[in-house]
Amino acid sequence: MKIRTLILGLCLSGILGAQEIPGGFSVRPANDASGKILTMEETILSRELSPARLWERWDGNGHLTVLMDGRWVTYDIATGDTSAYKASAPALKAFTEGQSLYLSRKDGSKVPVAVSEDPQITYGQFVSRNEFSIEDGIFWAPDSTRLAFYRKDESRVTTFPLLDITTRTGSLREIKYPMAGMDSENVQLGIYDLASGKTVYVKAEDFGYDRYLTNITWTPDASKVLIQVLDRSQKHLRLNAYDAATGDFIRTILTEDNDRYVEPQDPVWFLKGSNDTFIYRTDNRDGFRNLYLCNMEGGMQRLTCTDADVAYVANDGKYVWYTSAEVSPVENHLFRIRVKKNAAGWKFGKPERLTHETGWHEIRMSPDCRHFTDSWSSLTTPRVTDLCTSDGKTVRNILTAADPTLDHAYTEITLGTVKSADGRFDNYYRLIKPKDFDPSRKYPVIVYVYGGPHSQMVRNTFTGELRRWEMYMAQRGYLVYVQDNRGTQNRGAEFEKAIHRQCGQAEMADQMEGVKMLMQLPYVDKDRIGVHGWSYGGFMTISLITNYPEIFKVAVAGGPVIDWKWYEVMYGERYMDHPDVNPEGYALTSLINKAKDLKGKLLICQGAIDPVVLWEHSLSFVRECVKNNVQVDYFPYPCHEHNVSGKDRVHLHDKISMYFEDYL
Amino acid sequence: MKIRTLILGLCLSGILGAQEIPGGFSVRPANDASGKILTMEETILSRELSPARLWERWDGNGHLTVLMDGRWVTYDIATGDTSAYKASAPALKAFTEGQSLYLSRKDGSKVPVAVSEDPQITYGQFVSRNEFSIEDGIFWAPDSTRLAFYRKDESRVTTFPLLDITTRTGSLREIKYPMAGMDSENVQLGIYDLASGKTVYVKAEDFGYDRYLTNITWTPDASKVLIQVLDRSQKHLRLNAYDAATGDFIRTILTEDNDRYVEPQDPVWFLKGSNDTFIYRTDNRDGFRNLYLCNMEGGMQRLTCTDADVAYVANDGKYVWYTSAEVSPVENHLFRIRVKKNAAGWKFGKPERLTHETGWHEIRMSPDCRHFTDSWSSLTTPRVTDLCTSDGKTVRNILTAADPTLDHAYTEITLGTVKSADGRFDNYYRLIKPKDFDPSRKYPVIVYVYGGPHSQMVRNTFTGELRRWEMYMAQRGYLVYVQDNRGTQNRGAEFEKAIHRQCGQAEMADQMEGVKMLMQLPYVDKDRIGVHGWSYGGFMTISLITNYPEIFKVAVAGGPVIDWKWYEVMYGERYMDHPDVNPEGYALTSLINKAKDLKGKLLICQGAIDPVVLWEHSLSFVRECVKNNVQVDYFPYPCHEHNVSGKDRVHLHDKISMYFEDYL
Repeated sequence: MKIRTLILGLCLSGILGAQEIPGGFSVRPANDASGKILTMEETILSRELSPARLWERWDGNGHLTVLMDGRWVTYDIATGDTSAYKASAPALKAFTEGQSLYLSRKDGSKVPVAVSEDPQITYGQFVSRNEFSIEDGIFWAPDSTRLAFYRKDESRVTTFPLLDITTRTGSLREIKYPMAGMDSENVQLGIYDLASGKTVYVKAEDFGYDRYLTNITWTPDASKVLIQVLDRSQKHLRLNAYDAATGDFIRTILTEDNDRYVEPQDPVWFLKGSNDTFIYRTDNRDGFRNLYLCNMEGGMQRLTCTDADVAYVANDGKYVWYTSAEVSPVENHLFRIRVKKNAAGWKFGKPERLTHETGWHEIRMSPDCRHFTDSWSSLTTPRVTDLCTSDGKTVRNILTAADPTLDHAYTEITLGTVKSADGRFDNYYRLIKPKDFDPSRKYPVIVYVYGGPHSQMVRNTFTGELRRWEMYMAQRGYLVYVQDNRGTQNRGAEFEKAIHRQCGQAEMADQMEGVKMLMQLPYVDKDRIGVHGWSYGGFMTISLITNYPEIFKVAVAGGPVIDWKWYEVMYGERYMDHPDVNPEGYALTSLINKAKDLKGKLLICQGAIDPVVLWEHSLSFVRECVKNNVQVDYFPYPCHEHNVSGKDRVHLHDKISMYFEDYL
Repeated sequence: MKIRTLILGLCLSGILGAQEIPGGFSVRPANDASGKILTMEETILSRELSPARLWERWDGNGHLTVLMDGRWVTYDIATGDTSAYKASAPALKAFTEGQSLYLSRKDGSKVPVAVSEDPQITYGQFVSRNEFSIEDGIFWAPDSTRLAFYRKDESRVTTFPLLDITTRTGSLREIKYPMAGMDSENVQLGIYDLASGKTVYVKAEDFGYDRYLTNITWTPDASKVLIQVLDRSQKHLRLNAYDAATGDFIRTILTEDNDRYVEPQDPVWFLKGSNDTFIYRTDNRDGFRNLYLCNMEGGMQRLTCTDADVAYVANDGKYVWYTSAEVSPVENHLFRIRVKKNAAGWKFGKPERLTHETGWHEIRMSPDCRHFTDSWSSLTTPRVTDLCTSDGKTVRNILTAADPTLDHAYTEITLGTVKSADGRFDNYYRLIKPKDFDPSRKYPVIVYVYGGPHSQMVRNTFTGELRRWEMYMAQRGYLVYVQDNRGTQNRGAEFEKAIHRQCGQAEMADQMEGVKMLMQLPYVDKDRIGVHGWSYGGFMTISLITNYPEIFKVAVAGGPVIDWKWYEVMYGERYMDHPDVNPEGYALTSLINKAKDLKGKLLICQGAIDPVVLWEHSLSFVRECVKNNVQVDYFPYPCHEHNVSGKDRVHLHDKISMYFEDYL
């Protein structure tokens, strides 16, 4: 087997990325015969073990600036020379202070835009708990004459008490937490006119108090604001246009309805030079996230026609650039498509693929759409960054990273696929072999799982998205297995929405297909299978060990959701519906009901001031275990929130590892 | 060794309690060759494994009532017959509702005495967090014309937030917690006059806002109230008399001062028929808790003259009855002493010992002092209750309990002594041998420790105060060791106060003398020593494993004090002084400073709404371990307070046991 691996390794490096997925597998050969074993500090904290990365961005003026030695320098596209980057400060800046919104002028003066005197009202910050891709609460008009901003009213949202132990007598940190089925936020969009100093509020009267105002987009002429208004059930969306001067409703441009959910995640992108034509992405028309060319009157033509999720990159009025999963879900490639209007309407050219090397390509397009940078890696290629013209021709390679793991005892990593439980999909996995792998021996397995929406754990990137802790465990004699499942992203709507109303069920079924495959491998010790995950992965971990007590011997769950009724409205109700209309789904997935079924060893870890998955989740599970006289282990990370970050993460991973060492 | 034990066992049972402590040891022979092994449910929950007990009390009218089959019956002293007990309801009852105090008359009407409309003010309930033997807040005058009651003002006391997870969104339970060095309660004593319906407050102006009003005593004629007023530092006490009608200060009868602390724990007891002469107990005069005969003008004569702690039982004006540790600290015996006044003052007779059987005698004296019940047990005697005349003659045996452990595989229990680290005292221990003990083998040891003030873990009672969990572990192959140390009760002031300003230090030194003795035993596996304790014992446990990391391999600490600065004023400042005047003591004993020294396996358990030792303690220790990348284990008991009680206690002891099984 050693020889086979070696030969395969040689073959692979010869053909850059080896046998392609799908239809086979991709292998990164082991170099574990010599080389250093990871320490936990290296595993968690080392930057040297990641390939060198070029941090680059395009200036508005068409220059590429790159971060070198901690300073941003301007990179000359023609010569490759660099010079000091000169940033110009904007004349006006909007900023929030506390819960209020202000403008600061260049002269240092501060102009109030919206001042909150009520702790329940916040201006200018993100809303809806960052769902629907909402990251910010300030939206400048293209001509800077107006400023749109969110107003969030949490007066109906319940509070949750967190204990802060860093003060002498312990103090209370109360957070607002809108819990599934309970009263939620009210969001409004204000538009502040810089000339008059007046604010109007958009008259978004659809769907009542707790609807969502998502993906704010200004028309290029700054006359209108487009909002994707979503009802609380997340089954009905209206793309509405509003008058920026008055806030008046103009029209509904288009609507989306879905029995499960509509999840708007993108603004619209106006075609360069047009105030009427825009690109719109949805998975609600053809089952994949495709691009459509639309106009303000509701006209709509399908632009990308692939059975794969695509992502918009840029347009210059003539071409639209996008990346897509159509080559493979574990690869990301750039395409462009010609768009042209004639008397009969829009005509689209054939898509042209612009990136070709096997792997995952990240694209940054220059604002003038003349160049892009292509930063890519694959299982066997650490990282390459090329400067290209926008038709895909390479101008120059600007980074080829060395393999930083060469003198470390990295073991073999295999990417492959296993059928989903319903037989309709290939689920991708990575398998990390133990050090000094001997196929005649039996090895314990650790399944690392996340499994929740918006995630993709397996990609054809350098070391295949390996979390170094997996290699740490592989070097200590474990097979480590990581697999995506239905519900995760980049695989189309059917794949993603299969989990609706019963989170965890399809995901578990798919994970178990992977586990069954593992159990058929001659070198797997079927009696020593462990599972570990955090957050949604914590939920999956406890779901797996309680639903399959005969399979999993040891589990470590971090920050786990225990019952979706304790999770937040925006995310929770999308996948689980309102608790009143899906009581059977909530009951089926609640781990409170499963505590009595726990047989193996389970360690639960959680940040003691977790504001995302509240401490109530894991403490309630513990309480239920105690009630049923079921043994479970627990470890709180005081002063940590939803993740244990910084150097304390070393402690966490020592704890996790020791738990498997002690009990698996 | 088996044979020796057996012979010893036979000898012992022949002489009731065997060789006496001190000067030797006392052994309860094993019957582990046959018999049942304890289950954890039996260990924690069984009542059948305790010897039968007679619950008895004396009525005011001189009858003995006993609890039989769940009903109180009147026991005829002359014949031994029983008849139904008829309770008479009092004409007036004082009771609290919320934070207010009321009277209820026989006709059902409710009279407000002190009504609180401020959540920070409480009437009629205990104060000072139950220290100074304060268990109640209502004190009737002997003639029932007046009612004294505590008023507690907590407006300056900080609050501590507890998380209640039993509500859907988690809710906040805030408790008042006066923390060492911080602002404390203010206590007043009100006196309500039933005739006028008016209340006066006692003008207790000594020592400022946060002095303690302890051990309220009415004079028999109901004209005065005596209060033992203690300053916050607990170094200065004044026994003051106040006018019950006006609340005016009359005089200071006597004072106590001590560089370490004075701890008033008893009211005064007036000599029958006198309004002037009373019995007073203090350890501040001769180094032991002795009784003194005092008068209202401050006259004082020593009544008991033993170098041992005594406890007042009763007096009839001619005799004073008391129990004392003078035979042995692990035995409790009844004595009486004649008191007689002549022209020259009081004369006292010689003390007469009234109980003789080796063991621990609990005495209940009839109100007319003509009879008492003597309920006693020893290591080998399950329980005997005799009815006696007050000169010590047995009238009749009313209970001789059978040994309920006979068909259980109880192992050998030995009581013995080991010198304190300063060589001045004998510390008592019990040692439980493992099942099927073979002295040629090596056994792991579990030290169970409490070690804090007011405790006595080792007494010559049935099975020697064994906690059944010790037997559970002994039956599973462990030697279990429990020892008292300096700081614990019933051994005089020097022994008790040795811990002053550095809690844990003398205690650890003494425990280590026991451990050293164990390590010299040929059948002890020196590499497998564990320790377990709760509360003060949790503090001791973590102190031991961090101060002696080379000795202790495994430890389980429950509800541990981690730093005395987080503990309450009343208890904490008595032993540790104010943090401002003893920074070095607080620093020396703080386990925060010791977290980095932890080497062995430590599991910490705590009730997640512990209002006594706040959750901050153990979470802060965990945080410090994480900071130092030191591994520690933890388990919270949600919805439990300072102790895990009820059936969940089975889960706790399974957890503790499994931790030793896994790691020791």
